[in-house]
Formats: sequence, structure tokens, C-alpha cells
Amino acid sequence: MASQEIETLASALARLPGLGPRSARRAVLHLVKKRETALPALLDALLSVQDTLEECRICGNVDTQDPCGICSDPRRDAKSICVVEDVADLWALDRAKLFSGTFHVLGGRLSALDGVRPEDLAIPGLLARVEAGVDEVVLAMNATLEGQTTAHYLAERLEDFPVRITQLAHGLPVGGELDYLDEGTLAQALRARRPLG
Amino acid sequence: MASQEIETLASALARLPGLGPRSARRAVLHLVKKRETALPALLDALLSVQDTLEECRICGNVDTQDPCGICSDPRRDAKSICVVEDVADLWALDRAKLFSGTFHVLGGRLSALDGVRPEDLAIPGLLARVEAGVDEVVLAMNATLEGQTTAHYLAERLEDFPVRITQLAHGLPVGGELDYLDEGTLAQALRARRPLG
Repeated sequence: MASQEIETLASALARLPGLGPRSARRAVLHLVKKRETALPALLDALLSVQDTLEECRICGNVDTQDPCGICSDPRRDAKSICVVEDVADLWALDRAKLFSGTFHVLGGRLSALDGVRPEDLAIPGLLARVEAGVDEVVLAMNATLEGQTTAHYLAERLEDFPVRITQLAHGLPVGGELDYLDEGTLAQALRARRPLG
Repeated sequence: MASQEIETLASALARLPGLGPRSARRAVLHLVKKRETALPALLDALLSVQDTLEECRICGNVDTQDPCGICSDPRRDAKSICVVEDVADLWALDRAKLFSGTFHVLGGRLSALDGVRPEDLAIPGLLARVEAGVDEVVLAMNATLEGQTTAHYLAERLEDFPVRITQLAHGLPVGGELDYLDEGTLAQALRARRPLG
């Protein structure tokens, strides 16, 4: 490839998940060919996102406003909190439009292997929200060993609060991750959620 | 996904070849998480490419300068022209660093099916370059029926000029396209190029 600028763009694109060096070059070529349409569209989209992205101080979602669109939506039931590991999981559940409450992003899951301890997760914020008065906490961890360990840990931390603790029904395939599931499976899992214990 | 800006970014990314809606969302999430590093890097790369991209008036390559880096490189042999269908093919050959001459991008191949006729391709520019004095024209079309038809058409148009006309050796797998080939195959095909006829 001829110029340094084009090489730099190719390697910036190649670092995106799902794009390798070869597909990044094809993407560059697409952008180069459509430099009147696709290139400015992508640029504008990136620019409008860049400076406005913030982490919601309530739930940890990433949005262009703080509090995020979900937390500041009056139609949402703030008394019901769905706890997820990651922003990707929040988006997956939100896309399915199945949960009318709010969310709480832990920012990971407990993992001895990766050295993730309770103090590395956004648990104090969750406890503060529950303490302020919440009817239900839905533990929507991934159906992995670490996810379920995290769910049990949270259930223990929450057991002294007057709150209903539920977890997603095991419609989730074992080993599956929320962000990869189809909405039908997510719907079944949310609908059949049951008390932890 | 919460905000309109993030949705817009996801759909701009989903239009890149190789990224579908789901992988585009994962790419957005990656950019959102790495909004201090990966997002500005991609933005800067796009910005530095956006306004500087030009089509080389000599060969049709797309570069940040006109004439392009290849045409303006004095170490390149301007008396040897490698004719390719597309900018992607030029880049593929150039990456392999096997050809020390210059290129000419046709902008497609003759196709009855797609209604591409000789006047739709950058043939006048090629003829003008050959007329100005060229030792060799390498016809590096794809090894498809349409690519080979185009090669034969060009060979006919060039037969009255005192120029050696060669084509890539059939190391190319039949039906294959240049941009997808490994450099070893490209090298073999270039090294064993033979006179057309």
C-alpha cells in the first residue's frame, strides 16, 4: 500500500475485533472508494461519539449523557435493577426490549484466574442503590462458572436487604455469553427468572 | 443500545465489508471502552486520509498525493506498466514488492453481464502512456473469464505499438482474484510471465 496515512488507517481498523489485517485492508479500500459517502459518514459518527461518551454515574452504562438514557428515562422502573457483567450485556438485554427496569454494570466478574476480586467490581454502587430502596435485583450474569460465582457472591452480599433477588432462568445454554444469544433465548431466560437459593 | 450517536456509529461500521451488524456492535463497544486510545487513533487515521485522498492522474491509483507515490518514485521503471483491474489489485501486487515498474488501473473489467464496455475503462490513458514510449505492458487481470477477455481486448488494442505485451503466468488458480492470493503465488505468476498469443 502506498502511503503512510493509508497504512495507519489499515492498522487502526485491524485492531477492531472481527477485522484482521486482510479484511481491514478491504475496509480501507471500501472507504477509499467511497470517500465521498462512507468515509465522511464514519468520520462524523466517530466524531459525534468521541467527546460525548460518558460513564453513567448511576449504572456504569456508557452513553452520550450522564445519567445515561436508561437511568434518566422516567418510564423505567428504577426499583428494579438488572445486574450485568459488562456494558455489552446491558446493550444485549436492552436491544431485546424485555426489561423495563434499570441496569447496573459490574465491570467484570469474579475470577481467581484473572485476579478479579470483589473490590474490582462496581459492587459498592449497587449496594448503595439497593439500600436507597429497590424491589428486585435480577442477577443477569453470564452462564459461566465465573458468572455464576459472581451471582452467588452478590446474592450473599444482598441477603440482608429487603429485596427480591432473582436470576435469569436457565434457558441460557451452559457456557454461553449474553451478548451472543438470540433474543428468543434471552426472552425465555428473563421471563422464567426465579428466586436465587 | 442507548443513544442515537452510538447507533449511527454502529450502522456506519456495519457497512464496511467484513463487518455485519453484530460484529459492528462489538467494534463499537471496543471503541467505546478504548475511547482514550483506539477511538482517537481511528479518528486521526480517518481524518488524515479524508481530505488528502486523490486519484493519481497518471495511473488511477488512490493515494494521498497526485501523482501517486508509485508514479512519482524515480526508482520505479516508468517504461514498464502493469495493468490491473482495480486499486485493490495494485495494492496486492505492490505489497508483494515484486514489480519495480509502474501500474495502470482500468477501474473494472469488460463484462457483458454488468454492461461494462471498453469506454467505461481507463483505456485511453493507458494508450497515451504506451504511445509516449513504454517497453513492456504486463496484463495483470484476474484469472476469471471477464479478466481474460479484458486482457485479450487490451492486447488487440496494443498490438500496433512497439511494446512487449506479457501476461501473468498461469500460476494463478482459475477463478481466483488477485487480492486474495498469497504472495508466493503472486511471485510465481509474475516471475513466469510470458508473451501473450
